Amino acid sequence: MSGSSAPDTITLPWASDFHCHLRQGAMMETVTPMVEQGGVRTVLAMPNLTPPLTTAQMAVDYGKQLQALAPGVHFILTLYLSPELAPDEIKRAAAAGITAVKMYPSGVTTNSDWGVVDLKAYYSTFAAMQEANMVLCLHGECPSDADKGICILNAEERFLDTLRELHAAFPRLRIVLEHATTRAAVECVKSLGDTVGCTITAHHLFLTVDDWAGQPHHFCKPVAKFPSDRAALREIVASGHPRFFLGSDSAPHPRRAKQGEKPAAGVFTTPVLIPLVATLFEKLGCLAQLEGFVPTHGRNFYQLPLPAPGDATITLTRTAALKVPESYDVAGAPADTSGQRETVVPFMAGRELAWSVTGL
Amino acid sequence: MSGSSAPDTITLPWASDFHCHLRQGAMMETVTPMVEQGGVRTVLAMPNLTPPLTTAQMAVDYGKQLQALAPGVHFILTLYLSPELAPDEIKRAAAAGITAVKMYPSGVTTNSDWGVVDLKAYYSTFAAMQEANMVLCLHGECPSDADKGICILNAEERFLDTLRELHAAFPRLRIVLEHATTRAAVECVKSLGDTVGCTITAHHLFLTVDDWAGQPHHFCKPVAKFPSDRAALREIVASGHPRFFLGSDSAPHPRRAKQGEKPAAGVFTTPVLIPLVATLFEKLGCLAQLEGFVPTHGRNFYQLPLPAPGDATITLTRTAALKVPESYDVAGAPADTSGQRETVVPFMAGRELAWSVTGL
Repeated sequence: MSGSSAPDTITLPWASDFHCHLRQGAMMETVTPMVEQGGVRTVLAMPNLTPPLTTAQMAVDYGKQLQALAPGVHFILTLYLSPELAPDEIKRAAAAGITAVKMYPSGVTTNSDWGVVDLKAYYSTFAAMQEANMVLCLHGECPSDADKGICILNAEERFLDTLRELHAAFPRLRIVLEHATTRAAVECVKSLGDTVGCTITAHHLFLTVDDWAGQPHHFCKPVAKFPSDRAALREIVASGHPRFFLGSDSAPHPRRAKQGEKPAAGVFTTPVLIPLVATLFEKLGCLAQLEGFVPTHGRNFYQLPLPAPGDATITLTRTAALKVPESYDVAGAPADTSGQRETVVPFMAGRELAWSVTGL
Repeated sequence: MSGSSAPDTITLPWASDFHCHLRQGAMMETVTPMVEQGGVRTVLAMPNLTPPLTTAQMAVDYGKQLQALAPGVHFILTLYLSPELAPDEIKRAAAAGITAVKMYPSGVTTNSDWGVVDLKAYYSTFAAMQEANMVLCLHGECPSDADKGICILNAEERFLDTLRELHAAFPRLRIVLEHATTRAAVECVKSLGDTVGCTITAHHLFLTVDDWAGQPHHFCKPVAKFPSDRAALREIVASGHPRFFLGSDSAPHPRRAKQGEKPAAGVFTTPVLIPLVATLFEKLGCLAQLEGFVPTHGRNFYQLPLPAPGDATITLTRTAALKVPESYDVAGAPADTSGQRETVVPFMAGRELAWSVTGL
């Protein structure tokens, strides 16, 4: 799929992003309409808001806000795992059409302060989820603890035993290891059964530790790691493995929160997501796997309808190079103390991508 | 050396910092007088200026500027290894009292663009240095190269073979592996002969990767690494090993260069250096090793006079807790476009240290 034999257009049905932060308030109003602009028709919205979405009603209400901002998008809604989320609430959530529950270990990323310390305390919730056929999404990192030798570089690998335990305890529960960044995680997921899937972000397919050191717009959690880890991510997506699929973890923060004394963690890819992935897949010589990675594998795992003839599609065109904007204004957000407008900076700001979305 | 048996004052002769960036222009004028404030009497000034110090005359001229700014400090001068530095220049440098030559691999840190690609090309220079009894200071990192699996996390470990080769080829040449950050580097230096020394910074004794991820004022090259690496640094200084000594690698940058789209690499410790080290050594229970780490081991390695009775000393007092300033003005530097004064932020800004310099 390279050189003169490469296509100039690609038509994809139902491109799907199974991990996205759409935020609240002005930022939500700015980024939610960009989901389609980035080529995505189905998006799983993460629940780490302030306060976190811990009840079915909160998630339903959030979904209505999102839907009003992007009527053409299918939103998959999620709950935030916390002590408030009792097995009864799982039944209500499933009945209300909520698809998944997200587990954040306490303190590992943005708005994870309400997160989980001991997973065993949630086994009754997981049993209820398994019964209700809900999906458990895992932020798979152990909290850093220098005395135990745990830091952000090995936090994912150290979590994998927990993933294995959960899968063994709940073999029918569908579990997604989110945003895998290491060879160890890829190998672990491959070794487990069909109920364990794995999302991979666009930016982790591009970045290593060198790219976020001293570059806060590339800083996210989990952090990008060694070149050998990135190679493992690239190898698994190029192989077309059916349990690995796109979850962008697009995580917008205002520019002022990314460039300061303590830059916030998150890379913002929503408005250019599918062009990003297509550009990389072409570079890797695996454009033929794009349809599997973007809609098919994830939709199968989430048991969503597969595209049928006549369904809406997106068209990517290779000849129209996309220059990524330097930033986007966050409409309605207040200016800062020096009068500067609030903006949000996308991944690859100012760079050109080889593919753009030309038909929605 | 803890609890009620700990001393309330410590008197140190000739505290020495064998790796310091004193910069040029307004920044040099600001930070050079801070060397004594931080408790240091002898300081090795790095040559990565713009342009780099590649001739004996340039280094001598730089030394005069520094001396005028801090008449009470003994400055050790260095040259920047580059193709311009011929063996003849080594003889001139040694005659002019220049002590060391610094090798930067090309592109690994601030102002290293003129640095070294192939060390073998410099063997005649190293031979001349060995003859002249000069010291070779190594920034011991391989340039990152994803295709070879090299990134900033393993760049130091990958360099160690080069250190071993150099030591084998020039066994009488005194070599310092600068700012060691890994257990591998510590073990390598320990395994080599008496002509190989190693500096350790104050900040690498405090930090791991978690501390610089999303905290640009802790970002430096080499980056701080795993907890197990920091433990190795702490163990070797607590052991009092005679070939490991303080080289702060204090590297001031204007605040605006540290907080932006691409934060500069460097941690600024000069004004609080010896209090920092004393505070940590007390926490580690190895205050008894402070005199070895700070003046004695390095002065022995550099063949400097050891303190004699009647020499100047510094006094640290434990009861007078030092609150580190949030920042220092860079006197004489222009304001930025929004009218903000240029400032430089020290390590531990706003925090309290258990020791302060009370007598110089």
